[in-house]
Amino acid sequence: MNSAVSEPALIGVDWGTSSLRAFLIDTDGQVIEGVSSPEGIMQVSGNTFEAVLDRLIGPWVSQTDLPILASGMITSRNGWVETPYEQMPLGACRLAQALVPHDTESGVRVHFVTGASVEHAGGPDVMRGEEAQIIGASALGLSEGAFVMPGTHSKWVQVADGKIVDFSTYMTGEIFAALKGHTILGTLMTDDTFDEEAFTIGAKAGLEGSSNLLHSLFHVRTLPLMGKIPNGATADYMSGLLIGTEIAAAIIDESEMDAVTIVGRNDLSERYEIALRLAGLECRHAPDDIVAKGHFLIAQAAGLVG
Amino acid sequence: MNSAVSEPALIGVDWGTSSLRAFLIDTDGQVIEGVSSPEGIMQVSGNTFEAVLDRLIGPWVSQTDLPILASGMITSRNGWVETPYEQMPLGACRLAQALVPHDTESGVRVHFVTGASVEHAGGPDVMRGEEAQIIGASALGLSEGAFVMPGTHSKWVQVADGKIVDFSTYMTGEIFAALKGHTILGTLMTDDTFDEEAFTIGAKAGLEGSSNLLHSLFHVRTLPLMGKIPNGATADYMSGLLIGTEIAAAIIDESEMDAVTIVGRNDLSERYEIALRLAGLECRHAPDDIVAKGHFLIAQAAGLVG
Repeated sequence: MNSAVSEPALIGVDWGTSSLRAFLIDTDGQVIEGVSSPEGIMQVSGNTFEAVLDRLIGPWVSQTDLPILASGMITSRNGWVETPYEQMPLGACRLAQALVPHDTESGVRVHFVTGASVEHAGGPDVMRGEEAQIIGASALGLSEGAFVMPGTHSKWVQVADGKIVDFSTYMTGEIFAALKGHTILGTLMTDDTFDEEAFTIGAKAGLEGSSNLLHSLFHVRTLPLMGKIPNGATADYMSGLLIGTEIAAAIIDESEMDAVTIVGRNDLSERYEIALRLAGLECRHAPDDIVAKGHFLIAQAAGLVG
Repeated sequence: MNSAVSEPALIGVDWGTSSLRAFLIDTDGQVIEGVSSPEGIMQVSGNTFEAVLDRLIGPWVSQTDLPILASGMITSRNGWVETPYEQMPLGACRLAQALVPHDTESGVRVHFVTGASVEHAGGPDVMRGEEAQIIGASALGLSEGAFVMPGTHSKWVQVADGKIVDFSTYMTGEIFAALKGHTILGTLMTDDTFDEEAFTIGAKAGLEGSSNLLHSLFHVRTLPLMGKIPNGATADYMSGLLIGTEIAAAIIDESEMDAVTIVGRNDLSERYEIALRLAGLECRHAPDDIVAKGHFLIAQAAGLVG
């Protein structure tokens, strides 16, 4: 608990593929207390979502009668309650109108936040959970511009007037892992400390975008073979090449981009910051706990909190 | 043995990563007899290359005193004798001058063909074994133009006046396998018969090249999710997307390309033919046994055969 006395108003749950976080949120939208668990939807077998949630937020629920909002992959086909995808532009009001209430067997109502989809020339794109984060960020002085959410599937999100107007998914993290673990490119890789020089060389090659990844990835093999980079630098070179390629493609999609807000603070966001600066883009960082802020704003728009 | 009496003149060995083929070649460069084995260099442990070769071509060697040429990954760092890379332009004469003779413990001399390398803006590219195939094809009425050699690492080779002048590697086959086997994209895939419609949709998306693979691969997930293609079509859609992307990149590299010679006849070459035609390119097929023809031409240029 924070030392200042704050009144709980909402329970927000961010339930993803590989982990689960829940927040007790006060009447100002600030986090009073948070809990987390590795029980992402892929780790929960059968229909035991309710038991997992009970265990995690039971103490908060038993003492109060707070509304509960849940977002993330928990609303996907492999989750608890599948919700539809909302279209662009998407702000707190529309997400509030689209909340899907679900009463658990023990009589607790959970309001599920829907995901979002957008149709591009090559096919549809989807998100679940990121929309709540972006809505949270947009209330924290970041209501315009480009956001990048690095991860297994990184998302680039365009926000205008506090609403999501477009987004694209890049499978960069998952493709990195598959290439490292299951192709010839991984054979020389080591788990050394971050080699920023090798990362930078790779990022520059990716940003130049002079050739296709199917081809340029072969350089991860040939550069050490020809003694151009050390064997131990290949993982960071490849990381730079992939992230640089992602950023180059995202810039083409949004030509007027000049600054990017990075969501999340970890090793990966540090790499994105290096590569974004190489691309001549200004970097900002979203505050922590933006998803709780997003839950609060959506609950507020839905009249669930005062 | 062919029914016509032909005089053996050469033994050619094409020793790759995953298999091994040897040919008894006559004084006209025609194959008299061929043998093959799954003992590619990754399947041969320790220093037992000589024993494998002995077993395979021993009967030919014991009856004759024929020169032996070997090409392929057998000349790489993980092979038997590592040979240098030759530069472009590269024809039979230069490969003949660069042959690396090696006497085995039983006193048999093997002439190893060197590999080839070329420096592009993004990094070096290399081949080992394909150069002998291309030299063979160039003597069979295919001495000019673009060649594609589909495979784990497909090669695009530019030939002018019977010489290799440029080439690029695309890791398409290996990346397909890693994505299918080790990412979320593989979860819906089945081993159904070839779905040409799904392949064609994917190939068109790849050829349009409107966006980056890191992004467009996500459509392999979202298209079936949105009911746009059946779950069982995802493998062939992804195959088309990757091969189309490869071809689009190869066309940009060689803008004056109007016809392509496909090397190899199998399921994969059929897919390349469909995608190449979608790209508006004329397709030709290289004859079989071009590697034996290549060995013959290099041996002839080296004065090893009459």
